[in-house]
Amino acid sequence: MTENQYKAQFSKRTPQGDTHERNICDNCGFIHYENPKLVTGSVVVRDGKILLCRRAIPPRHGHWTLPAGFMELHESAEASARREAYEEAFADIEINALLAIYSIPRISQVQIIYRSRLLNDDFRPGTESLEVELFGWDEIPWDDLAFPSVHWALNQYHAVRNEAVFEPFSNPPGDEGDMTETSVPFEKR
Amino acid sequence: MTENQYKAQFSKRTPQGDTHERNICDNCGFIHYENPKLVTGSVVVRDGKILLCRRAIPPRHGHWTLPAGFMELHESAEASARREAYEEAFADIEINALLAIYSIPRISQVQIIYRSRLLNDDFRPGTESLEVELFGWDEIPWDDLAFPSVHWALNQYHAVRNEAVFEPFSNPPGDEGDMTETSVPFEKR
Repeated sequence: MTENQYKAQFSKRTPQGDTHERNICDNCGFIHYENPKLVTGSVVVRDGKILLCRRAIPPRHGHWTLPAGFMELHESAEASARREAYEEAFADIEINALLAIYSIPRISQVQIIYRSRLLNDDFRPGTESLEVELFGWDEIPWDDLAFPSVHWALNQYHAVRNEAVFEPFSNPPGDEGDMTETSVPFEKR
Repeated sequence: MTENQYKAQFSKRTPQGDTHERNICDNCGFIHYENPKLVTGSVVVRDGKILLCRRAIPPRHGHWTLPAGFMELHESAEASARREAYEEAFADIEINALLAIYSIPRISQVQIIYRSRLLNDDFRPGTESLEVELFGWDEIPWDDLAFPSVHWALNQYHAVRNEAVFEPFSNPPGDEGDMTETSVPFEKR
Protein backbone atom coordinates (compact mmCIF):
# COMPACT_ATOMS: atom_id res chain seq x y z
CA MET A 1 0.00 0.00 0.00
CA THR A 2 1.69 3.17 -1.18
CA GLU A 3 0.85 6.71 -0.27
CA ASN A 4 -0.27 7.29 -3.86
CA GLN A 5 -3.28 5.03 -3.44
CA TYR A 6 -5.11 7.77 -1.56
CA LYS A 7 -5.23 10.93 -3.58
CA ALA A 8 -8.89 11.85 -3.16
CA GLN A 9 -9.34 15.32 -1.69
CA PHE A 10 -12.88 16.64 -1.92
CA SER A 11 -14.04 20.22 -1.71
CA LYS A 12 -17.47 21.75 -2.28
CA ARG A 13 -17.67 23.52 -5.66
CA THR A 14 -20.29 24.10 -8.35
CA PRO A 15 -19.38 22.30 -11.60
CA GLN A 16 -19.58 24.37 -14.80
CA GLY A 17 -23.17 24.53 -16.04
CA ASP A 18 -24.51 23.10 -12.79
CA THR A 19 -26.78 24.85 -10.31
CA HIS A 20 -25.77 23.11 -7.06
CA GLU A 21 -22.54 22.70 -5.09
CA ARG A 22 -21.06 19.19 -5.26
CA ASN A 23 -18.19 17.40 -3.60
CA ILE A 24 -15.48 17.47 -6.29
CA CYS A 25 -12.06 15.85 -6.06
CA ASP A 26 -9.35 18.51 -6.30
CA ASN A 27 -6.95 16.02 -7.83
CA CYS A 28 -8.95 14.09 -10.42
CA GLY A 29 -12.10 16.20 -10.91
CA PHE A 30 -14.46 13.34 -9.96
CA ILE A 31 -17.88 14.75 -9.03
CA HIS A 32 -19.58 12.90 -6.17
CA TYR A 33 -23.30 13.43 -6.86
CA GLU A 34 -25.63 12.65 -3.97
CA ASN A 35 -29.29 11.95 -4.60
CA PRO A 36 -32.41 11.08 -2.62
CA LYS A 37 -32.96 7.46 -1.67
CA LEU A 38 -35.93 5.46 -2.86
CA VAL A 39 -38.05 3.32 -0.56
CA THR A 40 -40.67 0.97 -2.03
CA GLY A 41 -43.38 -0.88 -0.16
CA SER A 42 -46.99 -2.00 -0.10
CA VAL A 43 -50.21 -1.93 1.76
CA VAL A 44 -50.68 -5.73 1.57
CA VAL A 45 -54.29 -6.86 1.92
CA ARG A 46 -56.22 -10.10 2.21
CA ASP A 47 -59.95 -10.38 2.92
CA GLY A 48 -59.98 -6.73 3.98
CA LYS A 49 -57.19 -7.23 6.52
CA ILE A 50 -53.84 -5.44 6.27
CA LEU A 51 -50.43 -7.03 6.82
CA LEU A 52 -48.15 -5.14 9.20
CA CYS A 53 -44.65 -5.96 10.45
CA ARG A 54 -43.28 -5.13 13.91
CA ARG A 55 -39.76 -3.79 13.41
CA ALA A 56 -36.81 -5.83 14.73
CA ILE A 57 -34.37 -3.08 13.71
CA PRO A 58 -33.83 0.62 14.35
CA PRO A 59 -35.21 3.19 13.75
CA ARG A 60 -38.49 2.67 15.65
CA HIS A 61 -37.65 -0.83 16.88
CA GLY A 62 -40.79 -2.57 18.15
CA HIS A 63 -43.21 -0.37 16.19
CA TRP A 64 -45.48 -1.52 13.36
CA THR A 65 -44.82 -0.69 9.73
CA LEU A 66 -45.64 -1.64 6.16
CA PRO A 67 -43.36 -4.15 4.42
CA ALA A 68 -41.07 -1.61 2.73
CA GLY A 69 -37.41 -0.78 2.34
CA PHE A 70 -34.62 0.70 0.28
CA MET A 71 -34.60 -0.16 -3.40
CA GLU A 72 -31.52 -2.01 -4.64
CA LEU A 73 -29.45 -1.37 -7.77
CA HIS A 74 -30.62 -3.03 -11.00
CA GLU A 75 -34.21 -3.79 -10.02
CA SER A 76 -37.56 -2.25 -10.92
CA ALA A 77 -39.72 -0.40 -8.39
CA GLU A 78 -42.33 -3.17 -8.51
CA ALA A 79 -39.73 -5.94 -8.05
CA SER A 80 -38.30 -4.02 -5.11
CA ALA A 81 -41.70 -3.85 -3.38
CA ARG A 82 -42.22 -7.59 -3.93
CA ARG A 83 -38.73 -8.38 -2.58
CA GLU A 84 -39.32 -6.29 0.55
CA ALA A 85 -42.63 -8.05 1.28
CA TYR A 86 -40.85 -11.38 1.02
CA GLU A 87 -37.78 -10.37 3.05
CA GLU A 88 -39.72 -8.80 5.90
CA ALA A 89 -42.75 -11.10 6.06
CA PHE A 90 -42.21 -14.04 3.67
CA ALA A 91 -45.26 -12.61 1.91
CA ASP A 92 -45.91 -13.33 -1.76
CA ILE A 93 -47.80 -10.39 -3.15
CA GLU A 94 -49.47 -9.24 -6.33
CA ILE A 95 -49.33 -5.49 -6.93
CA ASN A 96 -52.66 -4.13 -8.19
CA ALA A 97 -52.27 -0.33 -8.04
CA LEU A 98 -49.92 2.50 -7.22
CA LEU A 99 -51.23 3.95 -3.96
CA ALA A 100 -48.91 6.91 -3.33
CA ILE A 101 -45.59 8.65 -3.79
CA TYR A 102 -44.35 10.41 -0.65
CA SER A 103 -41.43 12.82 -0.34
CA ILE A 104 -39.63 13.30 2.98
CA PRO A 105 -37.24 16.16 2.12
CA ARG A 106 -35.61 16.35 5.58
CA ILE A 107 -34.07 12.91 5.10
CA SER A 108 -33.99 13.07 1.26
CA GLN A 109 -36.27 10.08 0.86
CA VAL A 110 -38.96 9.24 -1.70
CA GLN A 111 -41.37 6.41 -0.96
CA ILE A 112 -43.28 4.57 -3.70
CA ILE A 113 -46.16 2.67 -2.05
CA TYR A 114 -48.34 0.14 -3.90
CA ARG A 115 -51.65 -1.53 -3.08
CA SER A 116 -51.07 -5.29 -3.16
CA ARG A 117 -52.85 -8.56 -2.56
CA LEU A 118 -51.43 -11.22 -0.24
CA LEU A 119 -51.19 -14.57 -2.05
CA ASN A 120 -49.83 -17.05 0.52
CA ASP A 121 -50.81 -18.39 3.95
CA ASP A 122 -47.37 -19.13 5.36
CA PHE A 123 -46.26 -15.52 5.84
CA ARG A 124 -44.08 -15.13 8.93
CA PRO A 125 -41.43 -12.73 10.32
CA GLY A 126 -38.25 -12.19 8.29
CA THR A 127 -35.01 -11.18 10.00
CA GLU A 128 -36.05 -7.52 10.17
CA SER A 129 -39.42 -8.25 11.83
CA LEU A 130 -40.38 -9.34 15.35
CA GLU A 131 -43.97 -10.23 14.34
CA VAL A 132 -46.13 -10.02 11.23
CA GLU A 133 -49.87 -9.97 11.51
CA LEU A 134 -53.06 -9.29 9.55
CA PHE A 135 -55.16 -6.52 11.09
CA GLY A 136 -58.77 -5.57 10.45
CA TRP A 137 -59.28 -1.81 10.13
CA ASP A 138 -60.44 -1.50 13.76
CA GLU A 139 -57.59 -3.67 15.05
CA ILE A 140 -54.70 -1.61 13.60
CA PRO A 141 -52.26 -0.61 16.38
CA TRP A 142 -52.60 3.12 15.63
CA ASP A 143 -50.71 4.11 18.79
CA ASP A 144 -47.69 2.05 17.82
CA LEU A 145 -47.11 2.78 14.13
CA ALA A 146 -43.49 3.42 13.20
CA PHE A 147 -43.63 6.41 10.84
CA PRO A 148 -45.96 9.20 9.70
CA SER A 149 -46.04 7.68 6.19
CA VAL A 150 -47.53 4.44 7.61
CA HIS A 151 -50.46 6.50 8.93
CA TRP A 152 -50.82 8.23 5.55
CA ALA A 153 -50.72 5.01 3.54
CA LEU A 154 -53.22 3.17 5.74
CA ASN A 155 -55.73 6.02 5.67
CA GLN A 156 -55.31 6.64 1.95
CA TYR A 157 -55.66 2.91 1.26
CA HIS A 158 -58.86 2.89 3.29
CA ALA A 159 -60.28 5.83 1.31
CA VAL A 160 -59.91 4.04 -2.06
CA ARG A 161 -60.23 0.44 -0.93
CA ASN A 162 -63.24 -0.13 -3.19
CA GLU A 163 -61.93 1.79 -6.22
CA ALA A 164 -60.37 0.01 -9.18
CA VAL A 165 -58.95 3.22 -10.68
CA PHE A 166 -57.95 6.22 -8.59
CA GLU A 167 -55.49 9.05 -8.60
CA PRO A 168 -52.47 8.10 -6.48
CA PHE A 169 -51.83 10.12 -3.36
CA SER A 170 -48.87 12.16 -2.19
CA ASN A 171 -48.07 13.68 1.21
CA PRO A 172 -51.05 15.15 3.08
CA PRO A 173 -50.99 18.90 2.32
CA GLY A 174 -48.21 20.70 4.18
CA ASP A 175 -46.96 17.54 5.88
CA GLU A 176 -43.31 16.72 5.19
CA GLY A 177 -43.27 13.59 7.33
CA ASP A 178 -41.30 14.95 10.23
CA MET A 179 -41.74 12.99 13.45
CA THR A 180 -43.59 15.69 15.37
CA GLU A 181 -46.46 15.38 17.80
CA THR A 182 -48.96 16.40 15.10
CA SER A 183 -47.76 14.12 12.32
CA VAL A 184 -47.55 11.00 14.51
CA PRO A 185 -50.91 11.10 16.26
CA PHE A 186 -51.00 9.29 19.59
CA GLU A 187 -47.34 8.35 19.46
CA LYS A 188 -46.16 7.12 22.85
CA ARG A 189 -43.24 9.06 24.34
CA MET B 1 -1.82 16.20 5.17
CA THR B 2 -0.71 13.09 7.05
CA GLU B 3 -0.85 9.50 5.91
CA ASN B 4 -3.52 8.84 8.57
CA GLN B 5 -6.08 10.94 6.75
CA TYR B 6 -6.69 8.11 4.28
CA LYS B 7 -7.62 4.93 6.06
CA ALA B 8 -10.60 3.83 3.96
CA GLN B 9 -10.14 0.36 2.48
CA PHE B 10 -13.32 -1.09 1.01
CA SER B 11 -14.10 -4.73 0.29
CA LYS B 12 -17.33 -6.40 -0.82
CA ARG B 13 -19.06 -8.21 2.07
CA THR B 14 -22.62 -8.90 3.21
CA PRO B 15 -23.44 -7.12 6.48
CA GLN B 16 -25.03 -9.20 9.23
CA GLY B 17 -28.78 -9.52 8.61
CA ASP B 18 -28.46 -8.08 5.10
CA THR B 19 -29.25 -9.89 1.85
CA HIS B 20 -26.87 -8.09 -0.53
CA GLU B 21 -23.11 -7.56 -0.75
CA ARG B 22 -22.01 -4.00 0.07
CA ASN B 23 -18.75 -2.09 -0.04
CA ILE B 24 -17.65 -2.09 3.62
CA CYS B 25 -14.59 -0.32 5.02
CA ASP B 26 -12.22 -2.91 6.54
CA ASN B 27 -10.92 -0.34 9.01
CA CYS B 28 -13.98 1.48 10.33
CA GLY B 29 -16.90 -0.75 9.28
CA PHE B 30 -18.63 2.02 7.30
CA ILE B 31 -21.16 0.50 4.86
CA HIS B 32 -21.35 2.31 1.52
CA TYR B 33 -24.95 1.64 0.38
CA GLU B 34 -25.63 2.37 -3.28
CA ASN B 35 -29.19 2.94 -4.47
CA PRO B 36 -31.02 3.72 -7.69
CA LYS B 37 -31.16 7.33 -8.81
CA LEU B 38 -34.40 9.22 -9.19
CA VAL B 39 -35.26 11.31 -12.23
CA THR B 40 -38.32 13.57 -12.19
CA GLY B 41 -39.88 15.35 -15.15
CA SER B 42 -43.06 16.34 -16.92
CA VAL B 43 -45.03 16.19 -20.08
CA VAL B 44 -45.64 19.95 -20.17
CA VAL B 45 -48.68 20.97 -22.20
CA ARG B 46 -50.34 24.17 -23.39
CA ASP B 47 -53.30 24.33 -25.80
CA GLY B 48 -52.71 20.69 -26.72
CA LYS B 49 -49.06 21.29 -27.62
CA ILE B 50 -46.18 19.61 -25.80
CA LEU B 51 -42.96 21.32 -24.69
CA LEU B 52 -39.78 19.49 -25.68
CA CYS B 53 -36.13 20.45 -25.14
CA ARG B 54 -33.27 19.69 -27.52
CA ARG B 55 -30.36 18.46 -25.40
CA ALA B 56 -27.20 20.59 -25.20
CA ILE B 57 -25.46 17.92 -23.10
CA PRO B 58 -24.57 14.24 -23.38
CA PRO B 59 -25.97 11.65 -23.49
CA ARG B 60 -27.97 12.06 -26.72
CA HIS B 61 -26.76 15.62 -27.43
CA GLY B 62 -28.97 17.23 -30.07
CA HIS B 63 -31.98 14.95 -29.47
CA TRP B 64 -35.34 16.01 -28.06
CA THR B 65 -36.45 15.17 -24.53
CA LEU B 66 -38.91 16.07 -21.79
CA PRO B 67 -37.79 18.63 -19.21
CA ALA B 68 -36.51 16.15 -16.61
CA GLY B 69 -33.45 15.45 -14.52
CA PHE B 70 -31.92 14.04 -11.37
CA MET B 71 -33.67 14.87 -8.12
CA GLU B 72 -31.59 16.81 -5.59
CA LEU B 73 -31.24 16.20 -1.86
CA HIS B 74 -33.85 17.81 0.41
CA GLU B 75 -36.56 18.45 -2.15
CA SER B 76 -39.89 16.81 -2.93
CA ALA B 77 -40.53 14.90 -6.17
CA GLU B 78 -42.97 17.59 -7.33
CA ALA B 79 -40.57 20.45 -6.51
CA SER B 80 -37.85 18.60 -8.41
CA ALA B 81 -40.01 18.33 -11.55
CA ARG B 82 -40.86 22.04 -11.34
CA ARG B 83 -37.18 22.95 -10.89
CA GLU B 84 -36.14 20.88 -13.91
CA ALA B 85 -38.76 22.54 -16.14
CA TYR B 86 -37.43 25.92 -15.09
CA GLU B 87 -33.74 25.03 -15.41
CA GLU B 88 -34.04 23.42 -18.83
CA ALA B 89 -36.70 25.61 -20.42
CA PHE B 90 -37.46 28.55 -18.09
CA ALA B 91 -40.92 27.02 -17.98
CA ASP B 92 -43.26 27.69 -15.04
CA ILE B 93 -45.49 24.67 -14.69
CA GLU B 94 -48.43 23.46 -12.67
CA ILE B 95 -48.46 19.71 -12.05
CA ASN B 96 -51.95 18.24 -12.49
CA ALA B 97 -51.41 14.46 -12.42
CA LEU B 98 -48.86 11.71 -12.01
CA LEU B 99 -48.44 10.23 -15.49
CA ALA B 100 -46.00 7.35 -14.90
CA ILE B 101 -43.24 5.71 -12.92
CA TYR B 102 -40.61 4.01 -15.08
CA SER B 103 -37.81 1.70 -13.95
CA ILE B 104 -34.63 1.32 -16.03
CA PRO B 105 -32.84 -1.47 -14.12
CA ARG B 106 -29.77 -1.58 -16.39
CA ILE B 107 -28.76 1.90 -15.27
CA SER B 108 -30.49 1.72 -11.85
CA GLN B 109 -32.79 4.61 -12.59
CA VAL B 110 -36.40 5.35 -11.62
CA GLN B 111 -38.26 8.11 -13.44
CA ILE B 112 -41.30 9.87 -11.94
CA ILE B 113 -43.11 11.69 -14.76
CA TYR B 114 -45.98 14.13 -14.20
CA ARG B 115 -48.55 15.70 -16.49
CA SER B 116 -48.21 19.47 -16.20
CA ARG B 117 -49.60 22.69 -17.60
CA LEU B 118 -47.33 25.41 -18.98
CA LEU B 119 -48.07 28.76 -17.31
CA ASN B 120 -45.75 31.30 -18.95
CA ASP B 121 -45.04 32.63 -22.44
CA ASP B 122 -41.36 33.49 -22.06
CA PHE B 123 -40.04 29.92 -21.92
CA ARG B 124 -36.63 29.62 -23.60
CA PRO B 125 -33.57 27.33 -23.56
CA GLY B 126 -31.73 26.87 -20.25
CA THR B 127 -28.03 25.98 -20.22
CA GLU B 128 -28.74 22.30 -20.83
CA SER B 129 -30.95 22.91 -23.89
CA LEU B 130 -30.16 24.00 -27.46
CA GLU B 131 -33.82 24.75 -28.27
CA VAL B 132 -37.18 24.46 -26.56
CA GLU B 133 -40.35 24.30 -28.58
CA LEU B 134 -44.08 23.50 -28.36
CA PHE B 135 -45.09 20.68 -30.68
CA GLY B 136 -48.55 19.61 -31.82
CA TRP B 137 -49.04 15.84 -31.74
CA ASP B 138 -48.32 15.52 -35.48
CA GLU B 139 -45.27 17.78 -35.30
CA ILE B 140 -43.35 15.80 -32.65
CA PRO B 141 -39.85 14.89 -33.93
CA TRP B 142 -40.39 11.15 -33.39
CA ASP B 143 -37.20 10.26 -35.26
CA ASP B 144 -35.08 12.41 -33.00
CA LEU B 145 -36.29 11.68 -29.47
CA ALA B 146 -33.52 11.14 -26.92
CA PHE B 147 -34.65 8.11 -24.89
CA PRO B 148 -37.17 5.25 -24.96
CA SER B 149 -38.95 6.74 -21.93
CA VAL B 150 -39.68 9.94 -23.91
CA HIS B 151 -41.58 7.79 -26.44
CA TRP B 152 -43.43 6.04 -23.61
CA ALA B 153 -44.40 9.24 -21.82
CA LEU B 154 -45.62 11.01 -24.97
CA ASN B 155 -47.76 8.08 -26.07
CA GLN B 156 -49.14 7.45 -22.59
CA TYR B 157 -49.89 11.16 -22.17
CA HIS B 158 -51.76 11.10 -25.48
CA ALA B 159 -53.84 8.10 -24.38
CA VAL B 160 -55.16 9.88 -21.25
CA ARG B 161 -55.02 13.49 -22.42
CA ASN B 162 -58.77 13.95 -21.87
CA GLU B 163 -59.00 12.04 -18.56
CA ALA B 164 -59.07 13.85 -15.24
CA VAL B 165 -58.45 10.67 -13.22
CA PHE B 166 -56.48 7.72 -14.55
CA GLU B 167 -54.23 4.96 -13.37
CA PRO B 168 -50.59 6.03 -13.79
CA PHE B 169 -48.49 4.06 -16.24
CA SER B 170 -45.26 2.12 -15.84
CA ASN B 171 -42.91 0.64 -18.45
CA PRO B 172 -44.59 -0.92 -21.50
CA PRO B 173 -44.79 -4.67 -20.74
CA GLY B 174 -41.40 -6.36 -21.06
CA ASP B 175 -39.60 -3.15 -22.00
CA GLU B 176 -36.74 -2.21 -19.67
CA GLY B 177 -35.80 0.94 -21.56
CA ASP B 178 -32.64 -0.34 -23.19
CA MET B 179 -31.58 1.60 -26.25
CA THR B 180 -32.26 -1.14 -28.79
CA GLU B 181 -33.70 -0.91 -32.28
CA THR B 182 -37.13 -2.00 -31.04
CA SER B 183 -37.43 0.29 -28.06
CA VAL B 184 -36.32 3.43 -29.94
CA PRO B 185 -38.42 3.23 -33.09
CA PHE B 186 -36.98 5.10 -36.05
CA GLU B 187 -33.85 6.12 -34.21
CA LYS B 188 -31.24 7.41 -36.67
CA ARG B 189 -27.94 5.58 -36.55
